[in-house]
Amino acid sequence: MQIDYLDPRSGATFPLDQPRWCGPDRAPLMLTPLPGLTRTQIDAGLRSLWRYRAAFPLAVEQPITLGEGCTPLIARRIGGVSTLLKCEWLNPTCSFKDRGASVMLSLLRAQGITAVLEDSSGNGGAAVSCYAAAGGMAATILTPESTSPAKTVQMRAHGATVDLIPGTRQDTADAAVARSESIFYASHNWHPFFLHGTKTLAYELWEDLGFRAPDNIITPCGAGSNVLGCGIGFAELLRAGEIDTLPRIFAAQPANCAPIGTAFLAGAEDAVPTTIAPTMAEGTAIAHPVRMREVLGILRETNGGAVMLDEAEIAAATLDLARAGVYVEPTSAQASAAFGKLLETGTITPEQTTVLVMTGTGLKATPRIAELLGIGL
Amino acid sequence: MQIDYLDPRSGATFPLDQPRWCGPDRAPLMLTPLPGLTRTQIDAGLRSLWRYRAAFPLAVEQPITLGEGCTPLIARRIGGVSTLLKCEWLNPTCSFKDRGASVMLSLLRAQGITAVLEDSSGNGGAAVSCYAAAGGMAATILTPESTSPAKTVQMRAHGATVDLIPGTRQDTADAAVARSESIFYASHNWHPFFLHGTKTLAYELWEDLGFRAPDNIITPCGAGSNVLGCGIGFAELLRAGEIDTLPRIFAAQPANCAPIGTAFLAGAEDAVPTTIAPTMAEGTAIAHPVRMREVLGILRETNGGAVMLDEAEIAAATLDLARAGVYVEPTSAQASAAFGKLLETGTITPEQTTVLVMTGTGLKATPRIAELLGIGL
Repeated sequence: MQIDYLDPRSGATFPLDQPRWCGPDRAPLMLTPLPGLTRTQIDAGLRSLWRYRAAFPLAVEQPITLGEGCTPLIARRIGGVSTLLKCEWLNPTCSFKDRGASVMLSLLRAQGITAVLEDSSGNGGAAVSCYAAAGGMAATILTPESTSPAKTVQMRAHGATVDLIPGTRQDTADAAVARSESIFYASHNWHPFFLHGTKTLAYELWEDLGFRAPDNIITPCGAGSNVLGCGIGFAELLRAGEIDTLPRIFAAQPANCAPIGTAFLAGAEDAVPTTIAPTMAEGTAIAHPVRMREVLGILRETNGGAVMLDEAEIAAATLDLARAGVYVEPTSAQASAAFGKLLETGTITPEQTTVLVMTGTGLKATPRIAELLGIGL
Repeated sequence: MQIDYLDPRSGATFPLDQPRWCGPDRAPLMLTPLPGLTRTQIDAGLRSLWRYRAAFPLAVEQPITLGEGCTPLIARRIGGVSTLLKCEWLNPTCSFKDRGASVMLSLLRAQGITAVLEDSSGNGGAAVSCYAAAGGMAATILTPESTSPAKTVQMRAHGATVDLIPGTRQDTADAAVARSESIFYASHNWHPFFLHGTKTLAYELWEDLGFRAPDNIITPCGAGSNVLGCGIGFAELLRAGEIDTLPRIFAAQPANCAPIGTAFLAGAEDAVPTTIAPTMAEGTAIAHPVRMREVLGILRETNGGAVMLDEAEIAAATLDLARAGVYVEPTSAQASAAFGKLLETGTITPEQTTVLVMTGTGLKATPRIAELLGIGL
């Protein structure tokens, strides 16, 4: 089967065997639809997301793997209602970003790429640094100057070159694009191979649930790589005849930075004007998501939605989860806060199977959590 | 089959249905030998260490579980030699201590205990706080006054009462023993149920390897809960007829705090005088291990050994692992440093199957790793 890069807005395609991170006019690319896999094609002997490699766009002889994926799906009660938590912080760098990094860098290395550029202030940079190191690739990570040095320690320990960029997160992204002529831009926000890593979350939930899709998935949403990954993965499972209906996908965003939520509720197909303020849910503080239209499309096609959360709601959900034994960053706790609101409005019901995606560990947010507890560090 | 608490030094036994943490004279207790399990008794549908519950000393209807265990065993080359890393930081609180905490607190709760006392300055306290929260139990954690506030944030987020004790780590342990009359002392160093959690590491390695024991296991060793856990678990598998020989178990300790290594190399059966100095391998900075004799016994019975590492060796191993994509705390990196030394001396050989236990994430040691990289925080 022929697989190409696809610009979903123009319909233009580009051959997959020539590495690229965008279209000629800097349009974000997806891939043409893949057939997905059936349950008999799972390589059940592998304890990593590479058990689903039959669903990847390229065959890779030597994946860069550190045991990513196969995370626990645990039953917990949230506000008295049973739900399922997908514990994505039990990944090598302690966030879901490892799914994308493992697949993206494995495929790019197989195509001859030996050095990569990434921009990030958090989990994405940690994951790309880690997998580049594991795969013997050179990594350059651009981060906002304001990034806490603690976050850059992990990237530097992995041997990445870390360049601090003055200004905002957007300035850092712009600097990366400007440098993309001289080093391959393996951006977790831009490269479609990254999404074919995050799509393994869909395959895994389907397998965890005995080859069924859940009714609802609620995930924190910044640039939307989990929304897009679940959208792609479940669409493939539908195409492969393994499920009958798509799960509803809900995006949880901080009210202080909710470009997707705002556009969704306005019924728009692309960005609408929003105001942006600081938020403790820093993993979702993305003012200009690269694939806004595609994310909105998935929320609509799956009959899902968007939930915006104020800072007090995010704080309360973070502490409630910790007091129930689940230590995640405020970014992740948004899924739990959104679950409560969707139940309240009757958008979802308690007897449905709902999965909350817990994207990253609380250990990456110690100062914020200390603040919520009123403890000085 | 009758299972009792056992004082291995006197041979005295005590009934298991009366909760206790030590013998009448404060002797550390083990359990009388358990029969272990066979491969057909594994509950293969469970993605947690509770798949091995048939090997536990008590039946528990409602375990306190967050998906602990089932961690990746990944192949890596260390110094040009192939080895296997057991990635124990992919546990709910990001360290191996969750194995012990899940089993210990589940069994104690089933016996009616509702509030527990623990002393720790790190991973043990985090694990007990987390599982107490998950199980609706009250936890009081005593920590040395000098403990970094960042470490206590996680415990406090889980709702634990954290009491800072002036003086050394030993003073904190003494304070806990003194308070053990008023609240049940569920100590990760004292309670034998904890070891029946860490023994699942042995079961898991055996299953990971296609129901074989590895030739060698190298683990960081402070109080010795992984040495003891592996000793107990593999002895049970031998008793159950599932393996023919025990793997050799090696303890890695910092030269600056090596009571077990020093006693082992002196051929002693119990503690010998040693000097103690600060070490970056803080998880293994235990001057007076509670079960010194039992740990030494396992190292000898399995034809294993002890390796002592200077600070420069620990530092180099930490950075070498990170540059290969494995971000663990210096405590964990000792297993890798010891691997190199055991190969050098010919104690083990490259073609053998050797497992290095990677006990905790580098995210818990950011300031130390920054120091190794020469970065100011």
